[in-house]
Amino acid sequence: MEITTAKLAEKLGAELVGDAQLKLYGVAPIENAQNGDLSFLSNKKYFKYLDSSGAGAVIVPPEIKESQKTLLIHDNPYFAFSKALGLFHPEEDIHPQGIHKTAVVDDSCSIHESAHIGANVVLEADVNVGENTRILPGSFIGRQSRIGKDCHIYPNVTVREKTRIGDRVIIHSGTTIGSDGFGYAQHEGKSFKVPQVGVVVIEDDVEIGANCSIDRATLGETRIGKGTKIDNLVQIAHNVKTGQNCIIISQVGISGSTRLGNNVILAGQAGLIGHLSIGDNVIVAAQSGITHDLEDNSKHLGSPAHEMMHQKRIEAIINKLPDYIRKIRDIEKRLKDVE
Amino acid sequence: MEITTAKLAEKLGAELVGDAQLKLYGVAPIENAQNGDLSFLSNKKYFKYLDSSGAGAVIVPPEIKESQKTLLIHDNPYFAFSKALGLFHPEEDIHPQGIHKTAVVDDSCSIHESAHIGANVVLEADVNVGENTRILPGSFIGRQSRIGKDCHIYPNVTVREKTRIGDRVIIHSGTTIGSDGFGYAQHEGKSFKVPQVGVVVIEDDVEIGANCSIDRATLGETRIGKGTKIDNLVQIAHNVKTGQNCIIISQVGISGSTRLGNNVILAGQAGLIGHLSIGDNVIVAAQSGITHDLEDNSKHLGSPAHEMMHQKRIEAIINKLPDYIRKIRDIEKRLKDVE
Amino acid sequence: MEITTAKLAEKLGAELVGDAQLKLYGVAPIENAQNGDLSFLSNKKYFKYLDSSGAGAVIVPPEIKESQKTLLIHDNPYFAFSKALGLFHPEEDIHPQGIHKTAVVDDSCSIHESAHIGANVVLEADVNVGENTRILPGSFIGRQSRIGKDCHIYPNVTVREKTRIGDRVIIHSGTTIGSDGFGYAQHEGKSFKVPQVGVVVIEDDVEIGANCSIDRATLGETRIGKGTKIDNLVQIAHNVKTGQNCIIISQVGISGSTRLGNNVILAGQAGLIGHLSIGDNVIVAAQSGITHDLEDNSKHLGSPAHEMMHQKRIEAIINKLPDYIRKIRDIEKRLKDVE
Repeated sequence: MEITTAKLAEKLGAELVGDAQLKLYGVAPIENAQNGDLSFLSNKKYFKYLDSSGAGAVIVPPEIKESQKTLLIHDNPYFAFSKALGLFHPEEDIHPQGIHKTAVVDDSCSIHESAHIGANVVLEADVNVGENTRILPGSFIGRQSRIGKDCHIYPNVTVREKTRIGDRVIIHSGTTIGSDGFGYAQHEGKSFKVPQVGVVVIEDDVEIGANCSIDRATLGETRIGKGTKIDNLVQIAHNVKTGQNCIIISQVGISGSTRLGNNVILAGQAGLIGHLSIGDNVIVAAQSGITHDLEDNSKHLGSPAHEMMHQKRIEAIINKLPDYIRKIRDIEKRLKDVE
Repeated sequence: MEITTAKLAEKLGAELVGDAQLKLYGVAPIENAQNGDLSFLSNKKYFKYLDSSGAGAVIVPPEIKESQKTLLIHDNPYFAFSKALGLFHPEEDIHPQGIHKTAVVDDSCSIHESAHIGANVVLEADVNVGENTRILPGSFIGRQSRIGKDCHIYPNVTVREKTRIGDRVIIHSGTTIGSDGFGYAQHEGKSFKVPQVGVVVIEDDVEIGANCSIDRATLGETRIGKGTKIDNLVQIAHNVKTGQNCIIISQVGISGSTRLGNNVILAGQAGLIGHLSIGDNVIVAAQSGITHDLEDNSKHLGSPAHEMMHQKRIEAIINKLPDYIRKIRDIEKRLKDVE
Repeated sequence: MEITTAKLAEKLGAELVGDAQLKLYGVAPIENAQNGDLSFLSNKKYFKYLDSSGAGAVIVPPEIKESQKTLLIHDNPYFAFSKALGLFHPEEDIHPQGIHKTAVVDDSCSIHESAHIGANVVLEADVNVGENTRILPGSFIGRQSRIGKDCHIYPNVTVREKTRIGDRVIIHSGTTIGSDGFGYAQHEGKSFKVPQVGVVVIEDDVEIGANCSIDRATLGETRIGKGTKIDNLVQIAHNVKTGQNCIIISQVGISGSTRLGNNVILAGQAGLIGHLSIGDNVIVAAQSGITHDLEDNSKHLGSPAHEMMHQKRIEAIINKLPDYIRKIRDIEKRLKDVE
């Protein structure tokens, strides 16, 4: 792969400042880039590396106007960089069409001829696999599940029965979809299992990280909305419903029947109790604990969480508590003096 | 499946108020139930849906005495609902007796003839599998492990060597039982692995969620007590012992050698340090951090955790810290005036 | 296995106090040890068991000078115990050399003749497996990955393409190495996947627990430094780099591009945001939330975390907040009296 900066600027929709005929051969992080590499700057922490970087050209935001480097100025450098990465590293599809001879596929399954079913994959009865979908080695798809087209199921994924997966869904290794929800009825001091007879629905364009658990509904559906992206080791309990385009970062836990609006961001290790209603565009900070409904467009921090600015004030005060305690002691002394 | 409300009330031990001859064909959540559906109410948050629900009949607690709907009044609606779910959705056992031709089973194994050993399952030497137990595709059972009767091991579970599993145990996909405990001896600035030669014992009627890790003991046993239920993504370290009928919710972590009494409830994302003794009937709230022994029947909240009522007082004060700081500033001014 | 206390003291480099000709046959925890067992004491909590223990001999620290028991005094009892465990329980290598007939190994792979490739293992093209390495059933190794010598890959592990694993590396079941980093460029209200074209490098002598996720880099490397030990259910994001001999305890999450120095200890459930620089010998307490760079040799506690002694003062004050609030109210009354 070889491309000139002029051509690349055109493909990315970027403004070129500098050498238009420079040839680029690869992409590298700003600290390690060498001559011939394209790099990018988005996080201000790394701006300092610009002039000393070995990169041939750098995608930068409009606030950087000049440099000794050839610049590709773009409103959204990370998005432009992402497109460039795709140009320099086109996805290698090494997975041939067809069903590997070691796969165990029930006769009742309907597999599109362009799909790839890898080694040791097990498909139970009545599974439906769409066009160009790839299911990699060791994955299990339970009976009556449907997987759309252009999906990518990585190795050692478990999809339990009756799961419905849309198009262009990506599921990473070790993840379990459709395990029983955690439901017990307490009776005479024992826990009686509540049958979990609902399903999981994963809408189009969802990506689910590695080693996640998404439980099937007790009744009805657990549903992940279109375009939602889920990081690794995330727990999604029975009957949870997420809106569209949510971002759920690693190790988040969402308890049963909680509903997220659209464009919700849950940062790492946050936890939500069950039966909550979370509005659109809500942001929950890392490690926060959410115990009540949240309104649209609100931001929350802390365990238990409060509105973000309030909680930041609280945290600043907490950090100075030793000073305040000294103040109280001082006040007591002075008060004694005047009494 | 078709059943009259009269017949259902009898089977559930519920008091019938309304149409005794109504025919029910299925079960649905109160919000989506349609004519012919049985539903239930347990969480007060959902009581408002009762009259507008399309359900034919609804299982309710005794506090709901009348409605336009036909009611099945039961002291424990969730338990009654759970039994009804089992009636309308009898477990489909699609797993035939016998060993799938792709399973790799050592000749020294002892497998009950009624057991199901699924595709690509691997059983190492001297594994013992009891009556009616089902081991689903891709699971691995290490040598000298014993699995009792009526167990259900879902796909892609790993059970390491010498594990002892009782009867009616359920283990969900992606879970690892018997991995090495995290033990190192520090010596000359390096970590030397401590051999982990103990085992894991899972008693009868335990259910373990998806993607959990339960480590084998360094010496002796890690033990999960009878009737204990464990949610997804839970970490149980070496030599932990839980009592009977504990409830351990998603993403909890229990460090090495900690012991739980009976009927302990650990809510989501709680963490316990090692070598603790936790009494019977203890409740630990979500995201709490437990760093000392806990007495029987006590409740704990916070990180670090305190007794629950004390911690709730503390949290209420923390939420008002900005007011208190204003108060201190005001006091200082007034004090200056009188000095 | 039978050994005299004299011989054992010599092998462990311990000072013997008591019967030199006592024969030992096994190792057991101090509470359950019986005649003929070796035990050890390291944690002071268990010292009380010494005299009443059934153990024949006990490895103890120098602060214990005498007992009715035969003592093996060692500066580092846990290290000595660990060596003794290895003597009494030599690792049984039950895994024969060679490739199991059900393994699916691409012709282009290079497998050392002494390696063990277990049942249903899948090795994609150009995988390289070193001397004495054992890859157990159901594990998947992606194309162009290299695994060094004396490694132990437990069942149902997923190692994605182009991963580089050193010598004597242990990876426990359910773990995923090299899954895509969680990277999206936001554009017009949607999340566009950023290709994750980097790799993961695991240096020599690393151990990785069960059900962990270590993501491949966006560009360049995610790297786990030599001798680092990682517990279960840990999340390591794209482009993270750890130094040597770090200890990362269960359920920790490290966000993208954060770098750890050498000998860093991250306790259970701690979380680190991305793009941080963590110095050498840093200790982060359990459940802490790290949001800024940390200097060498510093200790941190809390969410958000502060320097440990400062945070402990804060926590002590927080626990007494109800008293301080009463004090403020009292001051207000007294102030009113003098006004």
